[in-house]
Amino acid sequence: MIKIGVIDLGSNTSRLVIYACEPGVSYKLVDQVRERVRLAEGIGPDGALHEEPIRRALESLTLFRSLCKASQVDKVIALATSATRDASNQALFLQRAKAACGVELRVLSGEEEAYYGYLGMINAFQHDDCFMFDVGGGSAQVTQVVNRQVRHGFSLPLGAVRMSERFFTSTPPSRKQIEALYDYVSERLSQHLARLKSPAPLIGSGGTARALAKLDQETRRYPMDRIHGYELSVDALDSLIKRMSRMTLSELEKMPGMNDERTDVILGGALVIRAIARVGKFDSILISGTGVREGAFFEQFLKDDQPHTDLQAPPVFVNPRQFAVDNMAHQYQVWHEHSFHVRKLACDLFDALRPLHGFGAAERELLCAGALLHDIGYRVSYYNHDKHSQYLIESGDLPAFTHREIALIGLMTRYHRKGEPDCTQYADIFVKDDAMRARVLAGMVRLAEYLERGRRQIVRGVTCQLERGEIVVRADILPHLRAEASMELWEAQRHSTLLAQALGRNIRVV
Amino acid sequence: MIKIGVIDLGSNTSRLVIYACEPGVSYKLVDQVRERVRLAEGIGPDGALHEEPIRRALESLTLFRSLCKASQVDKVIALATSATRDASNQALFLQRAKAACGVELRVLSGEEEAYYGYLGMINAFQHDDCFMFDVGGGSAQVTQVVNRQVRHGFSLPLGAVRMSERFFTSTPPSRKQIEALYDYVSERLSQHLARLKSPAPLIGSGGTARALAKLDQETRRYPMDRIHGYELSVDALDSLIKRMSRMTLSELEKMPGMNDERTDVILGGALVIRAIARVGKFDSILISGTGVREGAFFEQFLKDDQPHTDLQAPPVFVNPRQFAVDNMAHQYQVWHEHSFHVRKLACDLFDALRPLHGFGAAERELLCAGALLHDIGYRVSYYNHDKHSQYLIESGDLPAFTHREIALIGLMTRYHRKGEPDCTQYADIFVKDDAMRARVLAGMVRLAEYLERGRRQIVRGVTCQLERGEIVVRADILPHLRAEASMELWEAQRHSTLLAQALGRNIRVV
Repeated sequence: MIKIGVIDLGSNTSRLVIYACEPGVSYKLVDQVRERVRLAEGIGPDGALHEEPIRRALESLTLFRSLCKASQVDKVIALATSATRDASNQALFLQRAKAACGVELRVLSGEEEAYYGYLGMINAFQHDDCFMFDVGGGSAQVTQVVNRQVRHGFSLPLGAVRMSERFFTSTPPSRKQIEALYDYVSERLSQHLARLKSPAPLIGSGGTARALAKLDQETRRYPMDRIHGYELSVDALDSLIKRMSRMTLSELEKMPGMNDERTDVILGGALVIRAIARVGKFDSILISGTGVREGAFFEQFLKDDQPHTDLQAPPVFVNPRQFAVDNMAHQYQVWHEHSFHVRKLACDLFDALRPLHGFGAAERELLCAGALLHDIGYRVSYYNHDKHSQYLIESGDLPAFTHREIALIGLMTRYHRKGEPDCTQYADIFVKDDAMRARVLAGMVRLAEYLERGRRQIVRGVTCQLERGEIVVRADILPHLRAEASMELWEAQRHSTLLAQALGRNIRVV
Repeated sequence: MIKIGVIDLGSNTSRLVIYACEPGVSYKLVDQVRERVRLAEGIGPDGALHEEPIRRALESLTLFRSLCKASQVDKVIALATSATRDASNQALFLQRAKAACGVELRVLSGEEEAYYGYLGMINAFQHDDCFMFDVGGGSAQVTQVVNRQVRHGFSLPLGAVRMSERFFTSTPPSRKQIEALYDYVSERLSQHLARLKSPAPLIGSGGTARALAKLDQETRRYPMDRIHGYELSVDALDSLIKRMSRMTLSELEKMPGMNDERTDVILGGALVIRAIARVGKFDSILISGTGVREGAFFEQFLKDDQPHTDLQAPPVFVNPRQFAVDNMAHQYQVWHEHSFHVRKLACDLFDALRPLHGFGAAERELLCAGALLHDIGYRVSYYNHDKHSQYLIESGDLPAFTHREIALIGLMTRYHRKGEPDCTQYADIFVKDDAMRARVLAGMVRLAEYLERGRRQIVRGVTCQLERGEIVVRADILPHLRAEASMELWEAQRHSTLLAQALGRNIRVV
């Protein structure tokens, strides 16, 4: 287990993230510190960083250095983006920064910044083809991804701080100022976006995007407390912009969900994002919690010959969902033999009953995740571990799944022992038949769990047949163990009701 | 880290608990399996166990054996109580049991059963003097504890299954049958309890006691989902008995919170417990989640020269609360230097501000717990780790604290970064001024946390003085580090509002 720290000195904030990881196998974010540095503040025609922002930046770097030391971080990667990249006094600043944080700051070019943003996002989403943007304080990057690889990308100096400082003189700004900013950004973007246009989803990263997601979630009382993977509709973005463009600083500060370090630049940033979405003709934005920092981390995490990557390609997970599930199972040290076997039995049931439930690969993947993770709640307490499993799944990191999918996985674990899946709180994010999905999938995990009641893999597999309208589940047990397995069969029969009712058939376990 | 399994073959249920532990340092319940065996079923005048219950018992022991093997348990302790103790065919049964579970069953005498029940309870409660009972299926034990040691104890064949089988012929039983049972038990108890009487709390263990607690919690919509430490008033017990004594089996099964493996003997068991409480003149019962099994585990856990015990005494924690907090900190591998230092700074504040808040040793102990555990939520996710800390504290094992105290500790961790402690959900268990306690204590943890913002122990301690009505918090910082520490002072000042408002004074951090 090693610790990797990534420092990211942006135009608005300076951050440190610390990951504990076993390279290529599992990782966990163990710390994050954010300082509002506003390094790009007040840059004038000479293009030089000012002394006061520099002082704040150096202070944050000193703090990060001592945090890394206290956390026994093995490797520190320090990145600087737009504000440093464009500074006329860059060389002197880098010298002082090195003295402060003990490591050399690597100044990313616009292309490199776009690339690391892409690495951060592609490893946290399952999409093969998509567009990505990363709107920071100083610059904005847009990347087209085809087949999980970069097709085109560009970086423009259209960051939230930079645009706000250039176009706005007050909060709220005048309507004219708002229009001027928006038109300027659209104009700059359209030259580049024109050749990228294609029907694919848009994924967006950066502090502004995350802050907007949070504000929209508050508006609609969203049932999940997670930002990554949130779908922000462009209509919702428009209405947020409309509201914010009339607000004073203190009104902005009072908005539920507002991050108070961003109030003075959030409108400018929102307009940049709106321009990207409108010029590219997207209806919604999938918000990413990961970006440049995580990209730099993934490069380290996946740099050698690792099981989850393809050596011919960039350091990108072949299957980020599968990695995410394995990673979570790894974090909570679930009892592997038992969990793997419950997954196997649940899949046997799923495959054998396919004509009855009619679900496909998407549901099977969720079933695998729910079955493998059903017992992670043990880490909290033996008592109510089914409830704790759901809590850990809803609170933890399963980046490449949608919120709806995470809710379904959580429900399978919550109801793997008893009870009727209660989906009411997810009405807002569930689609047609999801309540039925939850019942069928939880019913399968439950039946598999009780076939594995003794955690001894005595039931090696199952087959199912329809006999006179009844589902007959046949357990495969070695002949000399049949007497011993009566407990498993009896328990499985007793706990088959949820699945039986969901499928509308009697179940007989033999 | 070793694993210890304890098998407990009782008259009603057969159980296996598995603990992972580092002897004397930390432990965690990692698995528990319960089988309804009803070993004492149908014992007639010949006193012999019947073949069918024996078969069920052997089946459960075989299952436990394979579970222990699958879990890689290092040591198995197998105990048998009243049903086996009193069986005329004991020798033959023990031979068959050994073949089934692979280890010799140790048949506890009544005194030994009382002793292990005591060990299980005393290590999970902070009381110096108290009475304890353990009502099982076959027998009931009562023990007087003085200065955390056994003064007197006895065991009588008054278990829930035994009494129900002897006095009841139907469900519900007749009023006459109920009275006969109650009078018989009271009569037997009063001979022994008379000389034990004293004004001390009553702590009760066993499946019946826990089931009654759960039923009462459901009746009053109790805010915490934990049984251990629950205070069941004798009035509430009376009203449960009144309701249950009119119910059929299927009505009992439908009671919210009812454990369906116990419906036919719960009334009998409740009457035994009622007799203990009434004859001993107790007003309420503190329910224990631990008993004989845990006692046998603690004997192993504390058997050598361990830091938490006194060699002259039985294997009993000197301070079970402190152990519980350390144990939880250990489970979640919190960042020790930082957490310890936040605890130190919070205690500095508490001690220096004592004239203003007027709280004493009890609150200081809670503050220590909350400060040490404030970051355990990191184990779930960096994001919202304050909420996760509260969840883990409310769901986890802090046995020697009351539910009210656990709620207060949880609130300190929940609000260690931001927000106003919200105590509304605890109205039912909080006492006068607890909302104020939560604010003051959370305010101190928060101020300490921000004085330790850089996790570098740069602020070594604090002193406080009242200057012109204002609280001046003076941070002790080495002279050459003063410039570097400005961040901590600034953050602490910014986050002092909760404490300042709770104490009704301005706070200035210098």
